[in-house]
Amino acid sequence: MKLNGISLIGGGQGQGEGPVVHAENPATGEQLEPGYRCETIDSVESIARLAADAFEIYRQTSGADKAALLRKIADNIDAAEEEIVARMQAESGLPEGRCRGEKGRTVGQLRMFAELVEEGSWVDARIETAMPDRAPLPKPDLRSMARPLGPVVVFCASNFPLAFSVAGGDVASALAAGCPVIVKAHLGHPGTAELVGQAVQAAVTECGLPDGTFALVYEEGIEVGSALVAHREVKAVGFTGSRQGGRALMDIAAARKEPIPVYAEMSAINPVFFLPEIMKSKGEALAEAFAGSLTLGVGQFCTNPGLVFCLKDQVEDFAQAVSKAAAAVEPATMLNSRICQNYRENRERLESLPGVSKVLKVEGPEGSCNEGAGVYVTSVEDYLENPLMWEEVFGPTTLIVAGSTVKELRDAAQALEGQLTATVHGTDEEIAASADLFSILERKAGRLIVNGFPTGVEVCHSMVHGGPYPATSDGRTTSVGSMAIGRFARPVSWQSFPDASLPDELKNANPLGIWRMVNGERVQGTIA
Amino acid sequence: MKLNGISLIGGGQGQGEGPVVHAENPATGEQLEPGYRCETIDSVESIARLAADAFEIYRQTSGADKAALLRKIADNIDAAEEEIVARMQAESGLPEGRCRGEKGRTVGQLRMFAELVEEGSWVDARIETAMPDRAPLPKPDLRSMARPLGPVVVFCASNFPLAFSVAGGDVASALAAGCPVIVKAHLGHPGTAELVGQAVQAAVTECGLPDGTFALVYEEGIEVGSALVAHREVKAVGFTGSRQGGRALMDIAAARKEPIPVYAEMSAINPVFFLPEIMKSKGEALAEAFAGSLTLGVGQFCTNPGLVFCLKDQVEDFAQAVSKAAAAVEPATMLNSRICQNYRENRERLESLPGVSKVLKVEGPEGSCNEGAGVYVTSVEDYLENPLMWEEVFGPTTLIVAGSTVKELRDAAQALEGQLTATVHGTDEEIAASADLFSILERKAGRLIVNGFPTGVEVCHSMVHGGPYPATSDGRTTSVGSMAIGRFARPVSWQSFPDASLPDELKNANPLGIWRMVNGERVQGTIA
Repeated sequence: MKLNGISLIGGGQGQGEGPVVHAENPATGEQLEPGYRCETIDSVESIARLAADAFEIYRQTSGADKAALLRKIADNIDAAEEEIVARMQAESGLPEGRCRGEKGRTVGQLRMFAELVEEGSWVDARIETAMPDRAPLPKPDLRSMARPLGPVVVFCASNFPLAFSVAGGDVASALAAGCPVIVKAHLGHPGTAELVGQAVQAAVTECGLPDGTFALVYEEGIEVGSALVAHREVKAVGFTGSRQGGRALMDIAAARKEPIPVYAEMSAINPVFFLPEIMKSKGEALAEAFAGSLTLGVGQFCTNPGLVFCLKDQVEDFAQAVSKAAAAVEPATMLNSRICQNYRENRERLESLPGVSKVLKVEGPEGSCNEGAGVYVTSVEDYLENPLMWEEVFGPTTLIVAGSTVKELRDAAQALEGQLTATVHGTDEEIAASADLFSILERKAGRLIVNGFPTGVEVCHSMVHGGPYPATSDGRTTSVGSMAIGRFARPVSWQSFPDASLPDELKNANPLGIWRMVNGERVQGTIA
Repeated sequence: MKLNGISLIGGGQGQGEGPVVHAENPATGEQLEPGYRCETIDSVESIARLAADAFEIYRQTSGADKAALLRKIADNIDAAEEEIVARMQAESGLPEGRCRGEKGRTVGQLRMFAELVEEGSWVDARIETAMPDRAPLPKPDLRSMARPLGPVVVFCASNFPLAFSVAGGDVASALAAGCPVIVKAHLGHPGTAELVGQAVQAAVTECGLPDGTFALVYEEGIEVGSALVAHREVKAVGFTGSRQGGRALMDIAAARKEPIPVYAEMSAINPVFFLPEIMKSKGEALAEAFAGSLTLGVGQFCTNPGLVFCLKDQVEDFAQAVSKAAAAVEPATMLNSRICQNYRENRERLESLPGVSKVLKVEGPEGSCNEGAGVYVTSVEDYLENPLMWEEVFGPTTLIVAGSTVKELRDAAQALEGQLTATVHGTDEEIAASADLFSILERKAGRLIVNGFPTGVEVCHSMVHGGPYPATSDGRTTSVGSMAIGRFARPVSWQSFPDASLPDELKNANPLGIWRMVNGERVQGTIA
């Protein structure tokens, strides 16, 4: 596939009348061709219009046809794997294995949603048949199911150029729900975005769907993206990025004449609790495993464990052991120079806070985009007093917070902000005795983990990659796993409709063979 | 039960240091005793604190115990029926039959949620068992289910002193989800609120639950309610009332440091389409039935049909027939003098708009709180040109919009704002040929109705009493029916937990016998 350096809109190319921007290879500093001609505010109306027009067709598309689209996108990405992986490596500095792994995850995710909508039960069909003789009033026939919201704007993540970008989880779940998608590319990896965008655009055409079902928009700055979020035809927003960026979109969406939902996955430090007994028996092995999770992908995961709680009398040995293992990991290329610069500044900020002691600071060469681990220690008292310690340092740095007793650690947990994950390591006895701690953590996080590490986010039905604000904008949702489709749908009821005018999902004969709730019972069958 | 004229807080009474307000009998203008001593902003912190403390206990309460609370509330309301109905009649001007009916609906709703949480499958439990040998990475055991959000503030409706008030749908669904509730009483019916509040407060005590599980707050003005919505310990809001009031709460919630969801059911005019063939064969009978729906409860339902579409050459006969039937309905007492005054003003506003012709205007006696029906006619052209015609006239007034063709009516449907309901009347052939119209209406409303009327909202699993903004603040939800519980919950995942540390809903043995999704299959059984 040829890179054209321009947005993909309406089955063709954008206007490209804005500035031209280039990606940079973070490993070499080299500017990558082609330049990307950005859109301007003038394109917004037509982009939104195309998506709105497409919605009128696409929302009527069957589950089987939506599945065909999602599978075709996956196939097209598979077919372009070599080009995508090469460009992604050049743009992100991520190693080949990670790029191939992320490609696998991305197509796997698309195919999971294909299976979900092809099977069809996700719409939560509910049927209550009429009782014309009920007293004092007859009961009407009433049936409900989920229907798509409308065009969705998705902002790509810097740290997952495939899995949370042009054909990532937000896009796959929105398309699965029946919503056209307008994607704003991340300028850290515009070429990767275009290659994937071409795969999606081709799939839309191959499936005979309206051009406006998909658009990929390049922009330098925030004007076009903001205007799309504010546009009356846009009905929901997906975002993965900074708290500041996510909150800005939330505020735009809330101020609209018709407010719309924003699903922003923003920031988390993913606390890990190490209880005393398991530390005694396995402290060193845990420290090594923890260092692996900390430094994985140069710490550039939203589930990176940036915060540890353990007891005071164990903290020195543990911090030393983590540092020893993390020091052995060479500084590696971060996603781009801005992320690397932010990492350095945020680590400095953390290091400068009163009560924080440095145990390890691996630094990359001056002028490079390479960085290594940071390990810092503080006390529960200092941690609770200084909210600056609660802020995310995006990268492989962690703050170990030491308390005198397990109760003190539990009290510290009460003060945590919303998180994507919270993890507890303990012996069988310790875990069995940790109901109070789990109860606290349940209110703080979307996912609770025992004796594991938060990195590694399984794409499945029971994954909650979410959590209370500020981890996400909306703790009632997940951005990974099959439940993510629910973000882009709303329930509708049909009352007293003749069978033939009902959607297939609600017809008596249950032609799709889906699971439904019929008069309160969960059944897969037909209605007599 | 004795009316004490003061808020119910913390298992006892509020501070009552604000102004004293009285209810008025709208039928007689008589001031009703006792006066209600309002709360001031000084009470907010302790009210929220009590709810937050209660949440720590109440969220751990089993489905069976929550069911016991809901049933006890229903029983206590049943036991106080005579007092409640008498006071409700005096405060609202609603006839006895309606008061008893609404009591029945209220206790029915409480018992429906009791059954729902006792059965337990509503939590959407999902289990994916571990695959330790999976390559390239082992798959962890992962399980998810819905958990309560936290304390909820509910604002009572003026038009349903029982079913959308102190123990109404919002309160019942929030308690069912596991959330403590702080209710702000509506000053139109403070005594009814107190009687029901006493029933709830007594049930909380009888069930041994923390005092902060329930509070009932009286306030003149908006300061206390606004501060509760803004309070960091409050996690969601339920509201039934005006668009202005609902939007104000949405804006407060969106501007919080931690934004929270607001479920506001605000306004709707509930369009009804009468297609030509059925008008030919049954026009007069439909007009009579429509007039019944229009004037039911003096038009004070959120599902009142305030807007009709039909063909030009049928509009005169239809409007006359509706008017004849509606004129036969005597003016009746509206809920309170403010609602009656607003009705008069809004009807005048509608009547004064260019292009609107009056067909019927039944007026109550000067100085009374009684009002009757209004029937007005306009053309599709005028309707589309003047958005002032789209505004709700809360009361028994309807605007009939006439178009030249069915296509013109369909085009008018495209311009509709979000609605709770949309209705189509047609012959079998007309309904079969109305896929395009239904497709448009599906995007506009929460509930679509064929050959019926929107008044009458069934409390069941498949009811969607919701719809796109401005009908509600959040079209992804319903405020009536069992799905309403989902508004007050969020999913949480448990990864690699030992069975004993999991919630009962997620344990291998499935001790609650609920429906779960296990490795992608819906099953009710255990896991080996």
